[in-house]
Amino acid sequence: MQHNASLTTPYSIRMMIRNEDYTGKTSGFVPGMIQANLIVLPQQYALEFLQFCQANRQSCPVLASSKVAGATDLPEHVAFDLDLRSDLSGYRVFKHGQLFNEVANVKDIWRDDYISFALASSLSFEESIRNAGIEVRNITELKNAPMYLTNIPCEAVGKFASNLVVSMRPMKPADAIRAIQICCRYPDMHGVPIHFGNPADIGIKNINRPTFGDPVTIKEGEVPVFWASSATAEVAMMNARIDSTITQRPGHMLITDIKNSDVSLF
Amino acid sequence: MQHNASLTTPYSIRMMIRNEDYTGKTSGFVPGMIQANLIVLPQQYALEFLQFCQANRQSCPVLASSKVAGATDLPEHVAFDLDLRSDLSGYRVFKHGQLFNEVANVKDIWRDDYISFALASSLSFEESIRNAGIEVRNITELKNAPMYLTNIPCEAVGKFASNLVVSMRPMKPADAIRAIQICCRYPDMHGVPIHFGNPADIGIKNINRPTFGDPVTIKEGEVPVFWASSATAEVAMMNARIDSTITQRPGHMLITDIKNSDVSLF
Repeated sequence: MQHNASLTTPYSIRMMIRNEDYTGKTSGFVPGMIQANLIVLPQQYALEFLQFCQANRQSCPVLASSKVAGATDLPEHVAFDLDLRSDLSGYRVFKHGQLFNEVANVKDIWRDDYISFALASSLSFEESIRNAGIEVRNITELKNAPMYLTNIPCEAVGKFASNLVVSMRPMKPADAIRAIQICCRYPDMHGVPIHFGNPADIGIKNINRPTFGDPVTIKEGEVPVFWASSATAEVAMMNARIDSTITQRPGHMLITDIKNSDVSLF
Repeated sequence: MQHNASLTTPYSIRMMIRNEDYTGKTSGFVPGMIQANLIVLPQQYALEFLQFCQANRQSCPVLASSKVAGATDLPEHVAFDLDLRSDLSGYRVFKHGQLFNEVANVKDIWRDDYISFALASSLSFEESIRNAGIEVRNITELKNAPMYLTNIPCEAVGKFASNLVVSMRPMKPADAIRAIQICCRYPDMHGVPIHFGNPADIGIKNINRPTFGDPVTIKEGEVPVFWASSATAEVAMMNARIDSTITQRPGHMLITDIKNSDVSLF
């Protein structure tokens, strides 16, 4: 269906998704609101996972978590009347770290021992960058941002270990500098980039073959600029080979009731 | 004993403390290095405690945690060759949330199920403020900063609940403005103040009777400026009435190998 995001609220979008009237990606929905990644795993792994996120918080910024095992919501200020089993427009179900299924809801497979984590996505800083008049290529080209597994190790915690995953946006140097300045304001939304320029410096062999997401055009005079990505947490989750975990489908984010401007540092 | 902090390293100070050649407060030791609060609790409460800290991270900024139950160290980049049982200059032992004992080390009572958390202290931003030529009254008066339990509720998680605890430093308005600017750079070190001016606005009845720490002089033309304090985590820990927990004695901080400048946002 067509959507007219600018006229709607996060709640009305979540209800539309709950009713499965919309099953697509959420980029551009309800400008100004934080969209989050979802990671759901059994409580017995939740402490180590949260420690992993805390130890690697530039890539894995936890916005909120469910406080009781099995809870289907998050604190109310994050999303009013939330049902995590149905209020995202697409889910990925993993068994022992392997993708098992992609589904529209997870009502039938929800477990009493699940703890859910919402991690900040890159959509917030992309919006701020675009508001400054800087093009974000993956949005222009209607793609998921290209993401790459680097050779930079994260701090491991128990079963959870991964190299850093980065997302990439090509920019002219002056725009990259302005984007760095803007991202200073969002330390809890991945903050500033971790690298620009030569992809090989961080172990990326072929910039046109991203590990996740889609390749985007890099124009003459542009450099690739790399941000720490929440996909790092997903890779760590997969590497842990837990019997049962859930994430959102790429680009099918949780639309929260929190404004980007509320988490801006200044 | 006398100490000459400017000539020493965090490691040499920790060894001096391990040998119990020094049992005093650590303010002013090894300028430029982060000093941290310590909270140690049984693993069964660690997930909810870390979730509490994450949900209230301006007051409870977790710098690092022990990744294995019973571990006596933290990740090596935090503090080389650390022994958490002896490398702080004073400990408080709590039973069921009540202060039970103050001791020089906790070697004899360490448990295999303890998880340890290091939380950023206010010493880092105090140093940055002083480096800008602004007086920090509690340092001038050789006191612990005054702290107050406010009427602002934190987000509770399971057993862990508390109102926000704040520390207070009196300043002239122009200095307060500069201090706010400086603290923008340290979002993981309690960040900017949460209030200035009328103490009653945040439920503080008598500014001269702090809940913790010592009262300090407020001079003509100064306003009290309030920062979120890690003491919030200690109060939540006490409120949880856990059988056995440990913190540092007030002002007897863990001296880390991390530079303040490494966590400065810009």
